[in-house]
Amino acid sequence: MAKKRIVIKLSGSAFGGDDGKVLREYAAFLSGISGSWQPVVVAGGGRVARQYIANARSSGADETTLDEIGIGVSRLNARLLICALGAKAHPYPPATLKEVRHAVDGGLVVIAGGLHPGQSTNGTAALIAEKVGAAQFLNATDVDGVYDRDPNKHSDARMLRKIGLGELRKMLAREDSVAGGYDLMDLVALKVIERSRIRTRILRADVNVLKKAVRGTAAGTELVLPDS
Amino acid sequence: MAKKRIVIKLSGSAFGGDDGKVLREYAAFLSGISGSWQPVVVAGGGRVARQYIANARSSGADETTLDEIGIGVSRLNARLLICALGAKAHPYPPATLKEVRHAVDGGLVVIAGGLHPGQSTNGTAALIAEKVGAAQFLNATDVDGVYDRDPNKHSDARMLRKIGLGELRKMLAREDSVAGGYDLMDLVALKVIERSRIRTRILRADVNVLKKAVRGTAAGTELVLPDS
Amino acid sequence: MAKKRIVIKLSGSAFGGDDGKVLREYAAFLSGISGSWQPVVVAGGGRVARQYIANARSSGADETTLDEIGIGVSRLNARLLICALGAKAHPYPPATLKEVRHAVDGGLVVIAGGLHPGQSTNGTAALIAEKVGAAQFLNATDVDGVYDRDPNKHSDARMLRKIGLGELRKMLAREDSVAGGYDLMDLVALKVIERSRIRTRILRADVNVLKKAVRGTAAGTELVLPDS
Amino acid sequence: MAKKRIVIKLSGSAFGGDDGKVLREYAAFLSGISGSWQPVVVAGGGRVARQYIANARSSGADETTLDEIGIGVSRLNARLLICALGAKAHPYPPATLKEVRHAVDGGLVVIAGGLHPGQSTNGTAALIAEKVGAAQFLNATDVDGVYDRDPNKHSDARMLRKIGLGELRKMLAREDSVAGGYDLMDLVALKVIERSRIRTRILRADVNVLKKAVRGTAAGTELVLPDS
Amino acid sequence: MAKKRIVIKLSGSAFGGDDGKVLREYAAFLSGISGSWQPVVVAGGGRVARQYIANARSSGADETTLDEIGIGVSRLNARLLICALGAKAHPYPPATLKEVRHAVDGGLVVIAGGLHPGQSTNGTAALIAEKVGAAQFLNATDVDGVYDRDPNKHSDARMLRKIGLGELRKMLAREDSVAGGYDLMDLVALKVIERSRIRTRILRADVNVLKKAVRGTAAGTELVLPDS
Amino acid sequence: MAKKRIVIKLSGSAFGGDDGKVLREYAAFLSGISGSWQPVVVAGGGRVARQYIANARSSGADETTLDEIGIGVSRLNARLLICALGAKAHPYPPATLKEVRHAVDGGLVVIAGGLHPGQSTNGTAALIAEKVGAAQFLNATDVDGVYDRDPNKHSDARMLRKIGLGELRKMLAREDSVAGGYDLMDLVALKVIERSRIRTRILRADVNVLKKAVRGTAAGTELVLPDS
Repeated sequence: MAKKRIVIKLSGSAFGGDDGKVLREYAAFLSGISGSWQPVVVAGGGRVARQYIANARSSGADETTLDEIGIGVSRLNARLLICALGAKAHPYPPATLKEVRHAVDGGLVVIAGGLHPGQSTNGTAALIAEKVGAAQFLNATDVDGVYDRDPNKHSDARMLRKIGLGELRKMLAREDSVAGGYDLMDLVALKVIERSRIRTRILRADVNVLKKAVRGTAAGTELVLPDS
Repeated sequence: MAKKRIVIKLSGSAFGGDDGKVLREYAAFLSGISGSWQPVVVAGGGRVARQYIANARSSGADETTLDEIGIGVSRLNARLLICALGAKAHPYPPATLKEVRHAVDGGLVVIAGGLHPGQSTNGTAALIAEKVGAAQFLNATDVDGVYDRDPNKHSDARMLRKIGLGELRKMLAREDSVAGGYDLMDLVALKVIERSRIRTRILRADVNVLKKAVRGTAAGTELVLPDS
Repeated sequence: MAKKRIVIKLSGSAFGGDDGKVLREYAAFLSGISGSWQPVVVAGGGRVARQYIANARSSGADETTLDEIGIGVSRLNARLLICALGAKAHPYPPATLKEVRHAVDGGLVVIAGGLHPGQSTNGTAALIAEKVGAAQFLNATDVDGVYDRDPNKHSDARMLRKIGLGELRKMLAREDSVAGGYDLMDLVALKVIERSRIRTRILRADVNVLKKAVRGTAAGTELVLPDS
Repeated sequence: MAKKRIVIKLSGSAFGGDDGKVLREYAAFLSGISGSWQPVVVAGGGRVARQYIANARSSGADETTLDEIGIGVSRLNARLLICALGAKAHPYPPATLKEVRHAVDGGLVVIAGGLHPGQSTNGTAALIAEKVGAAQFLNATDVDGVYDRDPNKHSDARMLRKIGLGELRKMLAREDSVAGGYDLMDLVALKVIERSRIRTRILRADVNVLKKAVRGTAAGTELVLPDS
Repeated sequence: MAKKRIVIKLSGSAFGGDDGKVLREYAAFLSGISGSWQPVVVAGGGRVARQYIANARSSGADETTLDEIGIGVSRLNARLLICALGAKAHPYPPATLKEVRHAVDGGLVVIAGGLHPGQSTNGTAALIAEKVGAAQFLNATDVDGVYDRDPNKHSDARMLRKIGLGELRKMLAREDSVAGGYDLMDLVALKVIERSRIRTRILRADVNVLKKAVRGTAAGTELVLPDS
Repeated sequence: MAKKRIVIKLSGSAFGGDDGKVLREYAAFLSGISGSWQPVVVAGGGRVARQYIANARSSGADETTLDEIGIGVSRLNARLLICALGAKAHPYPPATLKEVRHAVDGGLVVIAGGLHPGQSTNGTAALIAEKVGAAQFLNATDVDGVYDRDPNKHSDARMLRKIGLGELRKMLAREDSVAGGYDLMDLVALKVIERSRIRTRILRADVNVLKKAVRGTAAGTELVLPDS
């Protein structure tokens, strides 16, 4: 019997350090849970992606090209995590949903970057969760979870333990549309989560927090699906 | 000097007839405007796509797989329109944004189908418009344009000559998320239109209506971009 | 020890219904025999292929392009059967002989469509049988088997339990050459069957008939190879 | 206005010499006619292909694999002719009909090898002629043309100036099916020639004979198509 | 008549700034000379490549994987220069020699990154120069040219106006083998330069120096080929 | 636990005979050791490659194109050995390092030809040894090992049981650069062997000699790595 699959979208910030130490902690975590789960990780682009995108944008590149460049960086980030996992990982980041599907059949930990322009890594991770029939989706970001208001502006903002999918959609619809603004979750991801009823949690990209979530302990914000 | 490009998303319903007559009318239209414009068409899936998707869904296929099947049908539809255009068309539908970009460099009329799972053909068409730097985007659908309320339920619904992008986004956010509900336009398409400020019109998939729109005569609903 | 392989060419007519029920019967059959055999199925194009081909032909498309369109439809049909098989099937239809060869190594049921223009699905199925070293080839068509004369014109036509390969070749050489006329078997298929001495049976595309053939009970028409 | 296209299937024997002199004569010929025609050449495998195939067959390889090996050699032969043509030739042999179609759009001389297992280079050349809408197809072989009986066995065999397509089909149907026996023409090629009514001539692979044929002077055996 | 081609290997350090200004200067330079030359640029990996490689190496990645990661970064750098060139550049970096060959046929400025593991960008640039028949090869590095001894250790090191290919080979043979040590030139590059007698110059990656070299004014160190 | 991997570069001369007997001896050897090792073989081009290259060179082809042609022949040679191994071998020669990496994961004997222009098969074999983490690399050539001077010119030349890597590098640096001169080993291979500290032996391409080497008995010349 195949193991259950867990899709983890890992914020690009996890790939920032140059010494590889943080990635080896993530690798140890993934390796540790791989007895009971088959993890599929989607790496974000992080700081390097933002630099390349800023450079290309200053030359007048169109947004689709910027997306392609961001995807390129996220795949390099994926390779770093693959290196940290060694023989436990599928050796290359898959580049299409079809390649993801074939890669998971090999049974190893699969690490991908972005797949298609016009899709955030959140949206991509949700599609991958759908494609591989994941039992849960952890969206590991730069914040602790979803707040009732912007925590950067309101010191009394409160993190929510749970949020309804419809409510989160309304919050996102108020945000602006330029790339970079949708790291928490995006509308494509929500559509996919809703149509395939994927168990989802938004939480901080931190090995200890992820461990809690996998163990089933409360961590971050749980997304509540509407009754079907 | 290269011709200006126009992206036309053509509703799958245009491909319904088996005798090829309707497609030859579209072909004559595209051929006719190709002196002043380079058209890039994105074909929808239509009735055949709906049948295949219903069949696969009844077997329990995941939504991403359904998207892939719909894309497969839309590419076959694209091939029919290519046949109708003969030597005026790029001979195969491009399958990625990169292939679209290379194809337009050849100068011929380019006909694509869908590109990626998780994206409606509207979203795909908007991304293509962005990638090729299109001067305008015509979203040719099964309705005359955007109405102030659902024209199927309200006999006094009124078609709007113009609609603000923010207002349309609010209308769409109220719709449901399952595939099939977003033919008019979708949130990814709106995000792309907004960020790249693409001149856009939603109108009926009808050769005479498209001719008007290309000539600059009022047709369908014009999308009004926010001041930048 | 690997299971013996059986190649089944499945007439496009099996894919006609929109409700998926017929395909689930085929899926149950394939799943049922997969304990003792590894089935490799080649799907035909059927009614939808004929409609698309008629449409493209009316626009003056060359025959090679029509073949490509027919192959496109047969691959969509293959996907429907893959959906009906779920986890028992290789997840995508292979598109070249090389991909077929790699897919069978995975041990799952493999479902392909057509591969190359200029080849009927019968010819393709025979080549696949040769490539994977199949122990038998079932050509499941719209008729019960090979008749001594055209059963549509002669009410007293008699189905043959056996026919010599040379005799069948002579019958086929009298048929016309335009696509569509060679569903029973074709000359390329015969050449391949002969050179690789593949055990072959022509029978009706019907789950019960196929079950009989796999059990070894007489069904359809058996092809008798010349003494080598 | 694009030049008319001529497809020439060039027997593998033309590639036999190691000094490149013969190929440079063919290159000069192709270059010479390229003012009025766009030549598309399909190279055969010749002696080297026969050696590799014999070697692989002695190890028990299946016939499809032997076909793939023969195709591999024919592509290397194609590269030699490309080298001899220098800047006049498309730089690589296309490997699929789709690549052939894109290559001819570049306007240069296109040199291909075989494309698909299960197809002789004659069949492939006929399909290519169909795909590129060739005005004529020259099948350059190791004999002067079609004889009324086997010229190797009958000293009084007479070459025919013309032969009906149906009559040639009957002659071929008597031949055996193992690879190597169909160099003159094969049944797939005939099917394609008939359905697309391609003007065809079977003649000796000799630069002077080819020159005559292109000039319109009688050379080899002309294939007479049935009245349509 | 096609323009003469010039291959420029551009040190990764040229891509270091985040504001795109330096790249736009290079773009203006390339655009400026593109009336008389077709430039083909090979981008290096620079600082970002070194960071990713250090990270992966700290996880124990093999050197071939490190090469692949470096190539990934160099292709992203290539994309930045493509963005800066806009419509003057081939839109994507080619990924194989074959793609390079096809890209140059389009006539635009072509920007590539690395191609294969085990090859420095210098070696790759030399192979590309050979493949496209370049009239000259400028190796733009982080130093002014070749010195008679290591200028970092010897304050009296003198830059050479010319150096014999054999002499440079001897200098390089004394260097160590780990990636990173061969930025000036490497042995594969020398082998290619020698066998194809490519006019070569080693000079500083600086727009003004490159301009001089293109104008024919002395700049950097000229490589003197042995008499053939 | 996965088996240790051994990379064997097999001189093209092993593929010379047309009767397949020699290859079946190599196949029996590889099959015999595959209980304790996973062999990865890199086939050379041999006599046929030299003929094709001579032919193309006489037409003025550039050296990179000659390399591509040689790679093409080496892949056909690889296919012959695959045929001789039957079900023990991965069914196709991988064409990139990435494909090699995926192929070895299947556990079968993997047979490749050359991979990239500008790299000898020795260099390629060393890179493959690095990529798959091979425990040893046997470079099977046309000579018994490394001699203290050229054995073709000096009758008293003595084969060395061991040679230091630095010493061998100096010997190679004196050789000329044109393709064909580097069959013993080349500088790229040495760089790779050194940086990844791969246990290496240069010996005659002869089944009995290879058997000795695998058993651990002295055979050919052992390469001594510098202390790290």
